[in-house]
Amino acid sequence: MTATSSPGAAPVPAGLEATLALLRERADASLAELIEFAGIPSVSAQSAHRPDMERAAAWLAARLECAGMKSVSLWPTAGHPAVYGEWLGALDAPTVLVYGHYDVQPPDPLERWHTPPFTPTVVGERVYGRGVSDDKGPLLLTVQAADALLSATGRLPLNVKFLFEGEEEVGSAHLPALVKGRAAELRADFVISADGGMWSADFPSLTVSGRGLTALEFTVHGPAHDLHSGRHGGSVHNPLHAAAALVAGLHDEHGRVTVPGFYDGVTELPPEQREALTTLPFTDAAYLQQTGAPAIYGEAGYTTLERQWHRPTVEVNGMWGGYTGEGSKTVLPAEAHVKLSCRLVPGQDPERVHRLLRDHLSAETPPGVRIEFVPGNHHARAYALPATHPARVAARRVLRDVYGTEALEVGMGGSIPILETFQSVLGLDSLLFSFAVGDENIHAPDEFFRIPRVSQGQEAWARLWWALGAGG
Amino acid sequence: MTATSSPGAAPVPAGLEATLALLRERADASLAELIEFAGIPSVSAQSAHRPDMERAAAWLAARLECAGMKSVSLWPTAGHPAVYGEWLGALDAPTVLVYGHYDVQPPDPLERWHTPPFTPTVVGERVYGRGVSDDKGPLLLTVQAADALLSATGRLPLNVKFLFEGEEEVGSAHLPALVKGRAAELRADFVISADGGMWSADFPSLTVSGRGLTALEFTVHGPAHDLHSGRHGGSVHNPLHAAAALVAGLHDEHGRVTVPGFYDGVTELPPEQREALTTLPFTDAAYLQQTGAPAIYGEAGYTTLERQWHRPTVEVNGMWGGYTGEGSKTVLPAEAHVKLSCRLVPGQDPERVHRLLRDHLSAETPPGVRIEFVPGNHHARAYALPATHPARVAARRVLRDVYGTEALEVGMGGSIPILETFQSVLGLDSLLFSFAVGDENIHAPDEFFRIPRVSQGQEAWARLWWALGAGG
Repeated sequence: MTATSSPGAAPVPAGLEATLALLRERADASLAELIEFAGIPSVSAQSAHRPDMERAAAWLAARLECAGMKSVSLWPTAGHPAVYGEWLGALDAPTVLVYGHYDVQPPDPLERWHTPPFTPTVVGERVYGRGVSDDKGPLLLTVQAADALLSATGRLPLNVKFLFEGEEEVGSAHLPALVKGRAAELRADFVISADGGMWSADFPSLTVSGRGLTALEFTVHGPAHDLHSGRHGGSVHNPLHAAAALVAGLHDEHGRVTVPGFYDGVTELPPEQREALTTLPFTDAAYLQQTGAPAIYGEAGYTTLERQWHRPTVEVNGMWGGYTGEGSKTVLPAEAHVKLSCRLVPGQDPERVHRLLRDHLSAETPPGVRIEFVPGNHHARAYALPATHPARVAARRVLRDVYGTEALEVGMGGSIPILETFQSVLGLDSLLFSFAVGDENIHAPDEFFRIPRVSQGQEAWARLWWALGAGG
Repeated sequence: MTATSSPGAAPVPAGLEATLALLRERADASLAELIEFAGIPSVSAQSAHRPDMERAAAWLAARLECAGMKSVSLWPTAGHPAVYGEWLGALDAPTVLVYGHYDVQPPDPLERWHTPPFTPTVVGERVYGRGVSDDKGPLLLTVQAADALLSATGRLPLNVKFLFEGEEEVGSAHLPALVKGRAAELRADFVISADGGMWSADFPSLTVSGRGLTALEFTVHGPAHDLHSGRHGGSVHNPLHAAAALVAGLHDEHGRVTVPGFYDGVTELPPEQREALTTLPFTDAAYLQQTGAPAIYGEAGYTTLERQWHRPTVEVNGMWGGYTGEGSKTVLPAEAHVKLSCRLVPGQDPERVHRLLRDHLSAETPPGVRIEFVPGNHHARAYALPATHPARVAARRVLRDVYGTEALEVGMGGSIPILETFQSVLGLDSLLFSFAVGDENIHAPDEFFRIPRVSQGQEAWARLWWALGAGG
């Protein structure tokens, strides 16, 4: 689908037309660059990958330089560096801060990938590899769009500041401090995020809300060392039993979170918004087919989309203890471990929920074991973009031009912690304008990105900047 | 403590005296042999250790040959081989079948060992290493005692058949078939087991009952692949939540197992036996200090020793799912895994309990996930030795002679599956006559064996055989 073929699209100005033609010429090169970029295993969670993180940051900085960006720098943080670059030559036009992240999730479980996670592999109209969808593909195409605009027209239609962080997958812990320290350099009119993901492969969509996040890890300690479960079983509290009871006790039989105060401040969705959700092209049957889950599940009284987008959750992301190898080992383990995270909605303060959860788990821990919380700080508020925001309005028009159909406005179950930082530190709203799709196995084996989305995304970003610049 | 120093001991016959003297001469050599034997990582649960299992079996067979045993052979099974050797020259005396096992538990968690598990290391009066206590030390000293008797007197006081298996730590799955197939070759008057373990380092004891065992492993399946817990959390049942609820639901708030029918056939201990337990040198305070557990725990209405020896249990030995690495990963995992085992008491049929457990877990599995049981067959009945059995009577006398104090009669929380096989296939009772102690970190890091127990055990076995031969 190209600019000229979309029915009902506005006439395309010559500069934009030349840009889009250049992007079409460069299609193969664009994909080759993504394959090179995603080949760098920039796993922010694992310290062994620190050199790869540095390599990915350097690669990205070089690409920004090559695109004609100025002041390209690595901005150090207490963790992984952010990559910055800008073009500020459009004096009367607005300034947008473009956000993305070059770090990726760990590839575990490795054995479930069908292609090597860090050797991006093209299969038909998809490229498979860790990070291609979240967020290297969507990030890279913004740089490629800027490059083409500059090459074809000698300028950008508005001022752009690129800020690509390296810690999104571990909670963006150091970015708030960085943004605070660099507030003057990051001044802009609003943020456009390349991270986010479209809701469906079949319909263009804009994500206008996202859930917040708080994460927690704890260890349940029992005996001082592993014991023989025959000799001691029944007379020492098994940390795995205690951990299982703590986890099981987080929800009641209706799927509601039992942590006292958890739902404080959470409001019910207005009836018209609930109604609007029912008009989206979504069925539970298709969802079950997509996920492979045996049955629909969730908090009683809500639909699947309400549960995903507008209800808070507590979810265990990892749990382990005792013998997990081949065969059996009759051990009563010294400890059990649980990693969990909450998704939050407007009205919930992440730090308060974190505290409520800790208090609840501590109070529920029986005397035969003790609980220890792993230090960590992984918070994000829920987010919502005002309906009348100019970027939201322009983005709907651009998506209609590119796809020839009206964009759906949807919520997002996931979180982009940085959006809260942009709001609270810089006072900026954020538009999510990503060309990833939610079914692309992000955070899972066989992550992929749809290759046509590279061109569509480049075109959409060029058009969006053009539209916002013309209107500036 | 030697034979001649024990107060009230019977006069020692010359042949036995010569044997004990020879064992004292060989004390250093005996320890060196144990260090060599325990240096072979014969982990039966892990297929990578198959060559080590073969090496350990060959080592043991050679040691039996060297001790003067006849018909030494490796007896193949569908799993690891058993090692057999015999001396049948005492025509009018009884025949004892001596049981032990040369396989060991996996050494995990490796990082918690203070010395390398398969480089046995002497520290003061202890030797540290995987298997030194369970069961290589207690096993080896029986062969060393036979060797000394034959060397010193030219004969054994009774007929001995040694049967050492290689699958005790994985449930002795193939030994029942082997014993059935070799029933004629294994004919004996009773069994003496070198596996079992004394109850306390401070008092000699005889273990006269043991709990049975049944083990079960299951996987809870949810979505077809790992999902992003932000996007999908709250609308797909998390297999870790379901597994935790299944585990938590196995016990009620009084620590009783909830599986319907689990306690069928279980009888309460007679009041005089409960009373006898209270006279043993045991306190909860000392037990907490020994285990490092924060508080006493267990089924309401029973003491700690009752819970350990005479009450059945369900215990989770391992549980895992989701992301277990460094940092966080917001994943909703496709599956969760649980390994568990039950300890059983007289009146419980292991296969029936296994079935009850499966039925209960299946029935409790909610519709949003499905449960799959890992095939496996790891069963043992509970065991008890009659109070008037001649081996029990002789063993008490021998322990008094060696230690100068009356032996305690105690129960055992653990299981020796093979005892049930000897009972049901060969019709034989078994005496547990081990010189390991229950606090020696078996199945855990830093397993150790008390070096003086090597000599004490050798002396006790020589005396026991002498006593049983003289009485035969």
